[in-house]
Amino acid sequence: MIKKYVYGTPIPTDAVVQTIEPAEGPVQYLSELEMDGKILFHYVMEKDDIVYGLGEAMGGINKRGRVYRSFCSDVPDQTEDKESLYGCHNFLLISGMIQVGFFVDCASEVTFDVGYTSPNMLNIKPGCGDFVLYIIEGKSAADIVKQFREMIGRSYIAPRWAFGFQQSRWSYRDEDEIRDVVRHYRDSGIPLDAVYMDIDYMDGYKDFTISQERFPDFPAFVQEMKAQGIRLVPIIDAGVKIEPGYEIYEEGKQYQFFCKGSDGSDFVAGVWPGRTHFPDFLNSQVRMWFGSKYKVLTDCGVEGFWNDMNEPAMFFTEDGIREAKEYVQSFDFATNDPGQFFQLKDKLTGLSNRQKDYESFFHNMDGVIVRHDRVHNLYGSYMTRSASDALQQLLPGKRFLLFSRASYIGSHRNGGLWTGDNQSWWSHLLLNLKMMPSLNMCGYLYSGADLGGFGCNCSRELLLRWLGLGIFTPLMRNHAAIGTRRQECYRFGDTEDFKNLISIRYSLIPYLYSEYMKACLHSEMLFRPLAFDYPSDDFARTVEDQLLLGESIMITPIYEQNAKGRYVYLPEDMLLVVFRSSSVRRYQVMKKGLHYVSAAMNEVPLFIRKNKLLPLCRTSQCTEEMDTSMFEVIAFADRGFEYSLYEDDGTTTAYDSEKNYVRFAIQETEGALAAASDKTIVKLTLY
Amino acid sequence: MIKKYVYGTPIPTDAVVQTIEPAEGPVQYLSELEMDGKILFHYVMEKDDIVYGLGEAMGGINKRGRVYRSFCSDVPDQTEDKESLYGCHNFLLISGMIQVGFFVDCASEVTFDVGYTSPNMLNIKPGCGDFVLYIIEGKSAADIVKQFREMIGRSYIAPRWAFGFQQSRWSYRDEDEIRDVVRHYRDSGIPLDAVYMDIDYMDGYKDFTISQERFPDFPAFVQEMKAQGIRLVPIIDAGVKIEPGYEIYEEGKQYQFFCKGSDGSDFVAGVWPGRTHFPDFLNSQVRMWFGSKYKVLTDCGVEGFWNDMNEPAMFFTEDGIREAKEYVQSFDFATNDPGQFFQLKDKLTGLSNRQKDYESFFHNMDGVIVRHDRVHNLYGSYMTRSASDALQQLLPGKRFLLFSRASYIGSHRNGGLWTGDNQSWWSHLLLNLKMMPSLNMCGYLYSGADLGGFGCNCSRELLLRWLGLGIFTPLMRNHAAIGTRRQECYRFGDTEDFKNLISIRYSLIPYLYSEYMKACLHSEMLFRPLAFDYPSDDFARTVEDQLLLGESIMITPIYEQNAKGRYVYLPEDMLLVVFRSSSVRRYQVMKKGLHYVSAAMNEVPLFIRKNKLLPLCRTSQCTEEMDTSMFEVIAFADRGFEYSLYEDDGTTTAYDSEKNYVRFAIQETEGALAAASDKTIVKLTLY
Repeated sequence: MIKKYVYGTPIPTDAVVQTIEPAEGPVQYLSELEMDGKILFHYVMEKDDIVYGLGEAMGGINKRGRVYRSFCSDVPDQTEDKESLYGCHNFLLISGMIQVGFFVDCASEVTFDVGYTSPNMLNIKPGCGDFVLYIIEGKSAADIVKQFREMIGRSYIAPRWAFGFQQSRWSYRDEDEIRDVVRHYRDSGIPLDAVYMDIDYMDGYKDFTISQERFPDFPAFVQEMKAQGIRLVPIIDAGVKIEPGYEIYEEGKQYQFFCKGSDGSDFVAGVWPGRTHFPDFLNSQVRMWFGSKYKVLTDCGVEGFWNDMNEPAMFFTEDGIREAKEYVQSFDFATNDPGQFFQLKDKLTGLSNRQKDYESFFHNMDGVIVRHDRVHNLYGSYMTRSASDALQQLLPGKRFLLFSRASYIGSHRNGGLWTGDNQSWWSHLLLNLKMMPSLNMCGYLYSGADLGGFGCNCSRELLLRWLGLGIFTPLMRNHAAIGTRRQECYRFGDTEDFKNLISIRYSLIPYLYSEYMKACLHSEMLFRPLAFDYPSDDFARTVEDQLLLGESIMITPIYEQNAKGRYVYLPEDMLLVVFRSSSVRRYQVMKKGLHYVSAAMNEVPLFIRKNKLLPLCRTSQCTEEMDTSMFEVIAFADRGFEYSLYEDDGTTTAYDSEKNYVRFAIQETEGALAAASDKTIVKLTLY
Repeated sequence: MIKKYVYGTPIPTDAVVQTIEPAEGPVQYLSELEMDGKILFHYVMEKDDIVYGLGEAMGGINKRGRVYRSFCSDVPDQTEDKESLYGCHNFLLISGMIQVGFFVDCASEVTFDVGYTSPNMLNIKPGCGDFVLYIIEGKSAADIVKQFREMIGRSYIAPRWAFGFQQSRWSYRDEDEIRDVVRHYRDSGIPLDAVYMDIDYMDGYKDFTISQERFPDFPAFVQEMKAQGIRLVPIIDAGVKIEPGYEIYEEGKQYQFFCKGSDGSDFVAGVWPGRTHFPDFLNSQVRMWFGSKYKVLTDCGVEGFWNDMNEPAMFFTEDGIREAKEYVQSFDFATNDPGQFFQLKDKLTGLSNRQKDYESFFHNMDGVIVRHDRVHNLYGSYMTRSASDALQQLLPGKRFLLFSRASYIGSHRNGGLWTGDNQSWWSHLLLNLKMMPSLNMCGYLYSGADLGGFGCNCSRELLLRWLGLGIFTPLMRNHAAIGTRRQECYRFGDTEDFKNLISIRYSLIPYLYSEYMKACLHSEMLFRPLAFDYPSDDFARTVEDQLLLGESIMITPIYEQNAKGRYVYLPEDMLLVVFRSSSVRRYQVMKKGLHYVSAAMNEVPLFIRKNKLLPLCRTSQCTEEMDTSMFEVIAFADRGFEYSLYEDDGTTTAYDSEKNYVRFAIQETEGALAAASDKTIVKLTLY
């Protein structure tokens, strides 16, 4: 049951696809307070209520105890105190004696104080008076999420190759460097499906250009890589370089397609290419125009993209620089006053992503002029839509890989997301784990974090353990920043461990892909907190570091340095499978309750739930070489049951057919259990 | 068995008090490589070796997997990637099949790569060729630590009042603000023993001045506070303000007591007071002179100090500012090149604590001129010695509270330390826990972290949970930075929880003080990893979040947001005591093995070991009101045993007498167990 309440004159956000009539009468559940034309909502939480949701955000699975500010922000140093990250997903739900969800559909900033100021008080503060509030009642947390997901529409569906392991690094300069990466992977037998091209591939960081010098025959290079089972995935940044003669710049200028300053001139911000203009993605014509440019790359055979810097991130603006220059010039170093000194530092550090700059440019939303800060959170989301709409035209009937750094609910229908620039910190491995179910609640199923960490230096152990989570996330990408320790899997010696670990992923892909597709098609969550499936288990409600993944398994990644294993809570009897490679495993039936599970650095534990099974295919070098005719089945059963494996061609949009489900069954015959399927079952391991 | 190896011509560091003759023959255990006049040591670790030590450092109790750079640094944002903190403690030990300790006594930078670059390789790289290497063999980790501690001499002994709860905040401006803090504590019944005075109390941040305007009659104010059982603890910074007419400045200049630039003039750095000179603490005359100035405050009745900014921290130098100015002037903002822009930002951010500046001034070590970077790590340590030597004269026969931010082994004899500027992050609560035993290994017994976190905003839950650890650390101080959320315990509503929690501390003080004193007097550790007492328990070796504290108890603080409790490993049967206040507790005997212990936000769990007891006194408002004539005893026993409680007057230096031990016994009489002591035992709780 969803109720809709309209406040003021909201700017359409593209978040909701269902038509819901505004409700009559006063808002339920929330107390309302009007202050300075803004509305403040209160909700008094019970002591043991859990608050779920908020998508890409700091904190735990239970969001209590912190403040969250929805304002898409370029925040690579995601320390615990940060209130904003790259994406903004204003859906949360209370789970306790009362179950209720709230979605604040608001294009500008929204603040959620979830028991920080006062432990039992939830305060929601939209940054303006124009927004839509949805209140969702349901019989359980899972039910509320499902209703919400149906309301916001079907999540983006990635091609199956995007479930392969992917390597990225900001600094791959030319063909030879990429060839070298691929060769190392292939030589060491570590599976790989894609290599990313960060801003380095472009000519002067200009969107939709390819450096002729460093990639002299890009279409041939794309084919050369494809022949090895490798897709190239180039980055597209939001800002368009100001450079006379550069097509995108000239066209955008001519057609008035860039965001405008208050004086009507094209707004200028400094980003990677230097001075740039921002395409006005909130305008449908601009989306069509910018999207059409992806053709430059799809014509070369490219099938996947990542959209970046689309909060939009700004290093500096003309205004900011003018002010800073004046400040520096008038600054009297001779006084040596530390206060003044810190102000100067702040002035220069604060030049990037200034609130003031976000308030100084304007969009033309198909005729309506809107100041940027009022619609800030939509910018990246509409960039994703621009690309998605175009790619559907450019690659008809074919799936494409697409994900973005900035996002707002609605973009989940057009692409996935990665969680932005993180760090090689153990805490960010745990953050990655905790964020997955929250992202799923908000519709983001194709998602993942930079495995090994983007900033800072990664150790061998951290990368192995992080991959131990990454082998389960749809987007499984190792990505790192220029200047950090080289982080490709073959850089850390004894590559056998990495080969074995990533080979596990490849044998899991049929299951992961199946569960991902089912979650997309039926508005379900791929990753779920334990409490979603075991709602009456009080202990399960407190577990923050284990997740249910699809219908059969529970994952328990190890996220602490020098750990030999970890504590695990089983809400029912389960079968522990510790993988050392795709084929080397050990098994142990474990009872409901508390356990310590040992797992060496090169091992990955997972649990199979009672009367569930896990189908595994043989591992491969890349998804194209996957053989899904034969399966090994691991089952934990004391009776007969069935499992439906979803599979399709993985590349076209012909999904969602009854024919796409393959039945696996554990059958009781003459008192014994045996496996049956239309697939060949080469081995059954049954406990 | 300790072997000493001298390399080059080491600068004396004051770290070691035992006379040890240099060993003959080649160094054992370590491989040695000479590179560019520097020595590089290697040690190949076994897979399961644990590396302990390194005092104040990031990472776990087991230091493996990271790089540590000993170079006293002003690092408030202690993110996981940080290699240096405020103190430098170059002692570590390998614990595995082989047990061996290494102490690199070197006044300049030393780098320890403990299996980061290569997982099994320990690399030690002293920053210069002049140092002493000590290799310590022993039969156990505990034995090696004890030998090391005996070699470096007895740890500083704090007065007993310093075990009371202490409140601090950078921003207490005047008498009234401090009165207000004290009144709130007393009114809400939350015990309190001291209030700290941060830089705000001074006149223009000038050491040994007190603002006449804001503290018109400071001696009277000190007495007024003392009458309420409150000590005032002022800060002393390293830098001396350049201000004609200011006594300390004028004298220092006249006597040539400040560090010199390369041109022989007094070196200038910008710190809180603006332009300052640094007293040359490496010179014995300077130490005597500067130390004598503490009299200004001891004459007012002050009995405790904290020495700060003594890495020394430098916000900027004249040279740095000149360079930055030139850079800014020559910077062409018009190009809008992001590379140049980031360089400019780095230039300004990098002005503080520049390596180049540390290489540009000189010390006169009683006749020998030494460039600062060669002796950098001694600066804070010698400042502590200056204060300690002086306070022993100024307060004859009396103990004083003294601790420092920067430190080097040796300073542990003269004062304690706090772990510097941390943040209101849950990870820093855990870091606090993990650092305690490492600090103890290096001689720092009177130590603690800023409870609740110095930077960022603290939540009620974080403060309660952090106090749940803090009630066990000798230094128990709530401290926060200006600009952060007000963090005094009475600021978070429902003050009863804080009153109850801190009342637990006061009932524990006799035990904590006893164990602390015994650890000081017998070169033992107060906080120990489980493996120190249960060396043959393989699981105990992996436990990173529980500590043994003194002879009777094990602590298991809760360090995760929204947690209802935590996992605990018991290496033997123990008695769980969950405190809700000093008098409200629940008990449960728990078996050796894994458990989950529930503890609400306002509860603190601890464990009493087998055949050990915990004496508790009645709680009080401050240490002066403590009544140690009567005890309640909690014992976990299946036979008779004894416990010796150390006690003394807590204020004089007349410690270490046989008479200071009070016997508590559990005695077997006619098949039953009963408690006996020279103290009155008001209640025995026996399990």
